[in-house]
Amino acid sequence: MTTAVIQDTKMKTFEEMESAVRSYSRGWPTIFNKAKGYKLWDTDGKEYIDFFAGAGTLNYGHNDQAMQNKIIEYIQNDGIIHSLDMGTTPRKNFLERFNEVILKPRNLDYKIMFPGPTGTNTVESALKIARKVTGRDSVISFTNAFHGMTIGSLSVTANSFKRHGAGVPLHHTVSMPFDDYVEDQDSISYLERFLEDSGSGVALPAAIILETVQGEGGINAARMIWLKKVEALCKRWDILLIIDDVQAGNGRTGTYFSFEPAGIKPDVVCLSKSIGGIGLPMAITLIKPEYDQWGPGEHNGTFRGNNLAFIAATEALKNWESVEFSEAVQEKANFLRETVQKLIEKYPQLKGEARGRGLMQGIAIEEEGLAGKICAEAFQRGLIVETSGPNDEVVKFLPPLVIDREGLEKGLSILEESIIQVTA
Amino acid sequence: MTTAVIQDTKMKTFEEMESAVRSYSRGWPTIFNKAKGYKLWDTDGKEYIDFFAGAGTLNYGHNDQAMQNKIIEYIQNDGIIHSLDMGTTPRKNFLERFNEVILKPRNLDYKIMFPGPTGTNTVESALKIARKVTGRDSVISFTNAFHGMTIGSLSVTANSFKRHGAGVPLHHTVSMPFDDYVEDQDSISYLERFLEDSGSGVALPAAIILETVQGEGGINAARMIWLKKVEALCKRWDILLIIDDVQAGNGRTGTYFSFEPAGIKPDVVCLSKSIGGIGLPMAITLIKPEYDQWGPGEHNGTFRGNNLAFIAATEALKNWESVEFSEAVQEKANFLRETVQKLIEKYPQLKGEARGRGLMQGIAIEEEGLAGKICAEAFQRGLIVETSGPNDEVVKFLPPLVIDREGLEKGLSILEESIIQVTA
Amino acid sequence: MTTAVIQDTKMKTFEEMESAVRSYSRGWPTIFNKAKGYKLWDTDGKEYIDFFAGAGTLNYGHNDQAMQNKIIEYIQNDGIIHSLDMGTTPRKNFLERFNEVILKPRNLDYKIMFPGPTGTNTVESALKIARKVTGRDSVISFTNAFHGMTIGSLSVTANSFKRHGAGVPLHHTVSMPFDDYVEDQDSISYLERFLEDSGSGVALPAAIILETVQGEGGINAARMIWLKKVEALCKRWDILLIIDDVQAGNGRTGTYFSFEPAGIKPDVVCLSKSIGGIGLPMAITLIKPEYDQWGPGEHNGTFRGNNLAFIAATEALKNWESVEFSEAVQEKANFLRETVQKLIEKYPQLKGEARGRGLMQGIAIEEEGLAGKICAEAFQRGLIVETSGPNDEVVKFLPPLVIDREGLEKGLSILEESIIQVTA
Amino acid sequence: MTTAVIQDTKMKTFEEMESAVRSYSRGWPTIFNKAKGYKLWDTDGKEYIDFFAGAGTLNYGHNDQAMQNKIIEYIQNDGIIHSLDMGTTPRKNFLERFNEVILKPRNLDYKIMFPGPTGTNTVESALKIARKVTGRDSVISFTNAFHGMTIGSLSVTANSFKRHGAGVPLHHTVSMPFDDYVEDQDSISYLERFLEDSGSGVALPAAIILETVQGEGGINAARMIWLKKVEALCKRWDILLIIDDVQAGNGRTGTYFSFEPAGIKPDVVCLSKSIGGIGLPMAITLIKPEYDQWGPGEHNGTFRGNNLAFIAATEALKNWESVEFSEAVQEKANFLRETVQKLIEKYPQLKGEARGRGLMQGIAIEEEGLAGKICAEAFQRGLIVETSGPNDEVVKFLPPLVIDREGLEKGLSILEESIIQVTA
Repeated sequence: MTTAVIQDTKMKTFEEMESAVRSYSRGWPTIFNKAKGYKLWDTDGKEYIDFFAGAGTLNYGHNDQAMQNKIIEYIQNDGIIHSLDMGTTPRKNFLERFNEVILKPRNLDYKIMFPGPTGTNTVESALKIARKVTGRDSVISFTNAFHGMTIGSLSVTANSFKRHGAGVPLHHTVSMPFDDYVEDQDSISYLERFLEDSGSGVALPAAIILETVQGEGGINAARMIWLKKVEALCKRWDILLIIDDVQAGNGRTGTYFSFEPAGIKPDVVCLSKSIGGIGLPMAITLIKPEYDQWGPGEHNGTFRGNNLAFIAATEALKNWESVEFSEAVQEKANFLRETVQKLIEKYPQLKGEARGRGLMQGIAIEEEGLAGKICAEAFQRGLIVETSGPNDEVVKFLPPLVIDREGLEKGLSILEESIIQVTA
Repeated sequence: MTTAVIQDTKMKTFEEMESAVRSYSRGWPTIFNKAKGYKLWDTDGKEYIDFFAGAGTLNYGHNDQAMQNKIIEYIQNDGIIHSLDMGTTPRKNFLERFNEVILKPRNLDYKIMFPGPTGTNTVESALKIARKVTGRDSVISFTNAFHGMTIGSLSVTANSFKRHGAGVPLHHTVSMPFDDYVEDQDSISYLERFLEDSGSGVALPAAIILETVQGEGGINAARMIWLKKVEALCKRWDILLIIDDVQAGNGRTGTYFSFEPAGIKPDVVCLSKSIGGIGLPMAITLIKPEYDQWGPGEHNGTFRGNNLAFIAATEALKNWESVEFSEAVQEKANFLRETVQKLIEKYPQLKGEARGRGLMQGIAIEEEGLAGKICAEAFQRGLIVETSGPNDEVVKFLPPLVIDREGLEKGLSILEESIIQVTA
Repeated sequence: MTTAVIQDTKMKTFEEMESAVRSYSRGWPTIFNKAKGYKLWDTDGKEYIDFFAGAGTLNYGHNDQAMQNKIIEYIQNDGIIHSLDMGTTPRKNFLERFNEVILKPRNLDYKIMFPGPTGTNTVESALKIARKVTGRDSVISFTNAFHGMTIGSLSVTANSFKRHGAGVPLHHTVSMPFDDYVEDQDSISYLERFLEDSGSGVALPAAIILETVQGEGGINAARMIWLKKVEALCKRWDILLIIDDVQAGNGRTGTYFSFEPAGIKPDVVCLSKSIGGIGLPMAITLIKPEYDQWGPGEHNGTFRGNNLAFIAATEALKNWESVEFSEAVQEKANFLRETVQKLIEKYPQLKGEARGRGLMQGIAIEEEGLAGKICAEAFQRGLIVETSGPNDEVVKFLPPLVIDREGLEKGLSILEESIIQVTA
Repeated sequence: MTTAVIQDTKMKTFEEMESAVRSYSRGWPTIFNKAKGYKLWDTDGKEYIDFFAGAGTLNYGHNDQAMQNKIIEYIQNDGIIHSLDMGTTPRKNFLERFNEVILKPRNLDYKIMFPGPTGTNTVESALKIARKVTGRDSVISFTNAFHGMTIGSLSVTANSFKRHGAGVPLHHTVSMPFDDYVEDQDSISYLERFLEDSGSGVALPAAIILETVQGEGGINAARMIWLKKVEALCKRWDILLIIDDVQAGNGRTGTYFSFEPAGIKPDVVCLSKSIGGIGLPMAITLIKPEYDQWGPGEHNGTFRGNNLAFIAATEALKNWESVEFSEAVQEKANFLRETVQKLIEKYPQLKGEARGRGLMQGIAIEEEGLAGKICAEAFQRGLIVETSGPNDEVVKFLPPLVIDREGLEKGLSILEESIIQVTA
């Protein structure tokens, strides 16, 4: 039997039974079985280095031992697993610890909301509360933003393929240029002009929503000064500032929240992905107390009480009790950035451009399709890495934050081999 | 210290740190800790009979031993927990078992899609695919429907408080009268007239979406003949029929799918809640192969690969390998229906009306606020039961399907005591 | 040269230079030149009886002598012709006379607004003010309603071909069943149920808009009791009642306003078409003083000051100084109704159904396409009469109100000949 | 009796009977009676120089003698006045003459559509056909655009007060920066970037609609190179280019169409206002033959056959048979521009900025409210001139094109006196 046939056989169940919508099992056509730290193994026992981290969900790596232990213990004790937003011990513990470890030390005061346990759900809740509080209907989002796939969050997502998938026109939103969007033009001046001119055709919005580093949009990192200016515009016109920190939060850029270095205090913050610690579905929405104007149950969802996730989430907070974790991430980020720069210089045929911040980096590659070929080759060689950007033109590095120097080097070495192979 | 003060202290964390949007922890002001089968215990050790089942998520009861074992084993073996839609062993197993145990025996042919792991997400995916396939934008839903809280699914949800929470007008949908909505008037003739008249002001929709038994809307059970007629209208005008079986599916009404007794074959079926077996977030969308016209990744979501849920879900399918489970549910449903009838007759002051089907039943109570008082009293007495309906006028019975006769009797006996107390 | 060729030559300019959107010049392929009273003549000198009256714009007939004189005199004196909403003598005179002759005697108190001089513009202004006053966004309209072709008024128009022409989905409106829409079902119960149930999926609207007799929709005349009930629903829920009297007003049904026999007092009334007396563009919106909450210029339009129209309009009001005009219309309406009934009985193959009220009547004909054939034949024989209804199934009689008995008889006699010819 | 009391008495009818929406009768509180050429007289016999021209409707001045004669003759002969889109002699003559005098000599090939006789109606028809032809739903318009007040055209109008008046969110449109909108930034690069990036959040639109000189928006004249670039973008992405020449067309800027100097050929052109010659309601939409894909009656309107307007319109075309008319306008425009410059220099306290092109010019004045005060003073002194711009900051000069040098000088002299008085 040839390899091709074996491959075919392996993926048969997915090909025959699963909807055509499936995507990752196409690019990585194997069956994953086990995972630990920054490594995965498929059913053939082949090992993979993880530069993907569940699209930013596994910042603490796969199967953290302490989290595993806590979850198993809870199940063995018949702890309540599903509870909507009833009071439970894990929910109580998470609330208290999140406040102590994350909010208080950062001098942040937020009410914590548990929407349905997905990124799109926290975004939908953020948009709703901003509209309720301000009585305005429109929201400003940015070029190449990604906020989710349900109609509310999709309406602030920029990608045309994804928007078109809605099957209906998407309303009540305006797309503005992200930092550095048009060469030599200052996107803040545009935004400001549209807001201050009553004849601009753009109404004062309920909110401005943004990712400080756009993950799906091509690893575009806004400058801190740009974030500060956006916050200032929001204050000037009583617009709520929503930071969607679903992918860039939870330490991904080196600080717990990605906006910390800018010194801003968003009105609403969306968290999901790595908030659940071990990869279990969970999301929270942080809302400044003065804007927490919900009626009881005005936004709800069946799985807003995923207790196993709360347990792992609470355990994960331990990483934030001291500055060590954060410092280690930043150190690894520096190493990654240096290596990326070296690769760009060493392989000028890539016409590569370094992107990103923290452990959320990428190389934009000019030639159409080349980034995808590099990722495909890397998979064959045992590295899980994917593309992003409107034309899949960016090779995106999103390793678990707990990866060690050895893992990073090994992964980058596979990447370099793949570049050589593909550009040969 | 008085009880009131203790109560206050107990819920302090939730009151101070959680958003005002929280709801269940208001009506049931305690902290739940453990749960098994049809019972829960709070941190004070108080026991509760569960007539709520996580709003239909715990059809197989709390902490099913076999499911617990499988999950623990998987974690202990460092099984991959989070995987988006990559191929994994638990995903493969679920696909194969679901096909063998559920689809094939019912002569149903569906592609299986994994949207984000919540009810609202499967509904959003169903609406998208219907719009894509038909090229039409509007969707017909029904009075008192509940399909979710994100903007797409909220647009087909009928409740005005929930719709208003959107903060924007909801578009591309038309609300039609559910079965038996207006006294002495046939809602099918009405619907048919609107569809056949090109001057009706209602465009041919992409889809008609419905729950066969409306859970949140007041436990309104459509007649089988009505469902058949809706399917016939859909066929006549090439409209996709979407059954939202998130709450009524997974055996809740006695058969796996709630629509089986009507002999219809929906084009799209939405499942969530109890699909995950033990209460972990999971959802699937079933799509007839000819309508599975998605592009890869056209609808996605980070948590569409919740492997722990897949494991429990696969284990749960064992219940459907023979007819015994189904028959037992129906038997319990009959007993519940008889008891409900007796209560209505015994307490005429309720002006009660029996509602529902299978183990999804309720008593509609005329006097405003009375249903809520009964539920509050029941909670004090150790029974978890909630209201539904546009004015919270229905006491809703949704026990785990695995409840035994003793549990049902005990719960109903607490209910009767509560009625007596409240109507005294 | 054959007749067909001559015909071709005659219409060449329109065929070659005018947009494909042209419609009446297709059904009546000739060039009209002169007109007086209820007669028209084309450039070949052929005479036509007018049962169309400019789609209800020529209630006072073509070229009323007194109106002609007044207009000519005004022009000869260099009276200001175009004035937006500046103060002018003809505007002042119209305002005063309309108040004295129409409003006061009917005990109606309205502010008079001059929107752009077309029907669709008065409807757009009515929808705007209703939304502003109530702060609600949606409007309820009825099956087979026609209110105009600009996006606002089109959104409350029911015809699917016309709606589809928008090229965008039409929002913020709900279509409800008009009087007698579904056989044996009471449309008021439906409407009431939807309004009173907070779980109906239909929000409380800013307004209910309706035509008392639907012209384009098939000459459907609502019963007075139905109109009264709609008004009562509006009062109960603080919904503004908008009567679109563009076609049915100005005496068309026998009284000045079509709603007078119902004894209701709408909150907003839309008038256009015959308001301008001689067929010149003009429209007014009547608004109860308490709802006249416009800011200056909040709705405007260049041609809202068409002084020639004001002059003819003021002259036309003379007809309403006594009851004679109204009584004469009702007498002619009775004669028309009797003749229509006789025709239906005499030609049972039509399966005809009498429709309408006043001099706004029609015969609905079951066989598809037959109504159109009768109208085409009538044109050849010198009668201008058109179809209406969603499938063009109604032969519509809309003669000038000033037609005399002889004219009516002559027209109806041509109609009968056409029926005989076509059904032969 | 004091003057104030007389004034009060004079306007009493308007104040008491007309809706609060009236605007011009507030700023110019008198009753106009007669008008000829560039002069108006009120009922007190006071004379006014007209620098307003019916907001651009009276390019040929008031009561042109030849037009008056033709209209009177037609009425006296019982010419058909109202005809929807039936064939009539005046309609035929207009079509033929417009083709010969305007289109052919400019090498333009358009089908001519008669929408309802107002500017907003031609814009609504343009948007509809663009959406139908392309199958796309959104339309790009520009900052400070004004296209009309019905929901379709209002959705491409930028002014926030006017948009807010809709009472509903306005959809399917995107506002982009007009030429020179943000200092030192190139609005074309901005627009281009949004169009070429599939991740911009802005879908490819059906059309781009613009005024070459924005009248209501503050007399902002786009440069010819900017117009050329917009046309190039439209061609590159198969976007229809709609020029709304309602105010700037009909010779206002010196050429018949305002876009002629740019050498572009728009796909759709909207004309109204002065197209009717003498100020009677009329509008046409010009559509390239390949885009004239209307179904018969897909857009219609009762007053699309205003024969009196067609007669004056045909007469007005005589002005375009030679170049003299056009040259005279340009000469007067130069004089106006020079005088405006002189005034700006002479009165530096205005901080004035010259705006506009042809006989569509203005002075933007920095100090809030000053422009309005100048216009109010001018009215007292016998000059009709109004403000425009988002903050009414521009004094707008729109004299009839037929004004002579004397008239211009007289008007500008009153203006100067008013400036002196107000800034004193």
